[in-house]
Amino acid sequence: MRIGQGIDFHQLVEGRKLWIGGIDIPHDKGSLGHSDADVLLHAICDALLGALALGDIGTHFPDTSDEFKDIDSKILLQRSFQLIKDRGYKVVNIDATLCLQAPKIKNYVEAMRKTIASLIETDIHNISIKATTTEQMGFVGREEGLTAQAVALLQRDE
Amino acid sequence: MRIGQGIDFHQLVEGRKLWIGGIDIPHDKGSLGHSDADVLLHAICDALLGALALGDIGTHFPDTSDEFKDIDSKILLQRSFQLIKDRGYKVVNIDATLCLQAPKIKNYVEAMRKTIASLIETDIHNISIKATTTEQMGFVGREEGLTAQAVALLQRDE
Amino acid sequence: MRIGQGIDFHQLVEGRKLWIGGIDIPHDKGSLGHSDADVLLHAICDALLGALALGDIGTHFPDTSDEFKDIDSKILLQRSFQLIKDRGYKVVNIDATLCLQAPKIKNYVEAMRKTIASLIETDIHNISIKATTTEQMGFVGREEGLTAQAVALLQRDE
Ligand SMILES: [Zn+2]
Ligand SMILES: [Zn+2]
Ligand SMILES: [Zn+2]
Repeated sequence: MRIGQGIDFHQLVEGRKLWIGGIDIPHDKGSLGHSDADVLLHAICDALLGALALGDIGTHFPDTSDEFKDIDSKILLQRSFQLIKDRGYKVVNIDATLCLQAPKIKNYVEAMRKTIASLIETDIHNISIKATTTEQMGFVGREEGLTAQAVALLQRDE
Repeated sequence: MRIGQGIDFHQLVEGRKLWIGGIDIPHDKGSLGHSDADVLLHAICDALLGALALGDIGTHFPDTSDEFKDIDSKILLQRSFQLIKDRGYKVVNIDATLCLQAPKIKNYVEAMRKTIASLIETDIHNISIKATTTEQMGFVGREEGLTAQAVALLQRDE
Repeated sequence: MRIGQGIDFHQLVEGRKLWIGGIDIPHDKGSLGHSDADVLLHAICDALLGALALGDIGTHFPDTSDEFKDIDSKILLQRSFQLIKDRGYKVVNIDATLCLQAPKIKNYVEAMRKTIASLIETDIHNISIKATTTEQMGFVGREEGLTAQAVALLQRDE
């Protein structure tokens, strides 16, 4: 067994879409970034890569590369998963928390879990997505940005 | 085995009690929230629920419900634990860190660990509570609030 | 098996060295603290101690003690590891993320991993170090400080 963790940050700005967990969430702001800036998928990519000490999302998918400009982060997650699958590992479970002040994501969590489970070839019951505000504090509380944290447990696939 | 993680945030304000880890800590400020606002117990609830992908503390104990107004968070932890126990799991160990600038909680850690261990039916050696300041930085450093993070390892109870 | 986590914070100021992961990184600012203020090694110490509920880095190496003034944090990590080794545990793997706006640490990650692996008597493939900015947000984004988070998985050494 191996443990991994990831944390990611993105600014919230007008004129961008808000992709979280592979779902396009209606909101007056969206996340800024080189890719589609999906904070949750990025944190999960990092947890998978980190569990096997394969580097981080920035080394695999550099934000200076045209290849990843506006890319769908579902592709990044799929590629990250492929790297651990190639090494003979599978996901036991993933648990993540989104920290954002708004909007409420409750109605999208089921779709996010389904999307992620499918991409990393596991059951939806092995994918957990939680959410919290920061109680109006800090840059998340002022709705300037959002963050996500994830942990992953992997095991050898025999 | 399953892994879970939790993170929680509360504002520190005058005229409230400072409940942390089930202990009422003497301080000139306390945590603001719908319940007793125990940041550590909330992070642990989320880590337990998250490990089995059972939703989060907000979905189980909504802060819009009168049932949970000013509720003792020890009850929330007990209910969260019951949900994982009902599914045949027990706690291997929990490790948590409190981020707060003041007060020093060192003298209360033993009582917190004892309280939590008893609520989730495990040994005190399986409960770890650590603390750090944020070196005066950010909303925690300005004593506007406090945060807690927890990870949990669960296993099937045979 | 046991799980641990750690989080640490330090201010970045002029006139100090920037020790991260046991490596002295050239930069116009360094981390402020009682010891050499190595944010990554401190987070890993806390993850090791926390996994076995042995207290935290502040209880073992108090920042009020002359013994630890300007101390090389590699010594603190070695001592933390000795505590878990004495109890019959070894490290399965460690995964960590540094949050800092600048400088880029990519070219130092290999040396950090090698240093840490050697100190805690494990293979370099069991040590993962990732990095992210906070996208210019908060105290990390303003380059006032840096933080690190780590998770550790331990097992009995039979
Ligand atoms: Zn990202
Ligand atoms: Zn709370
Ligand atoms: Zn430190």
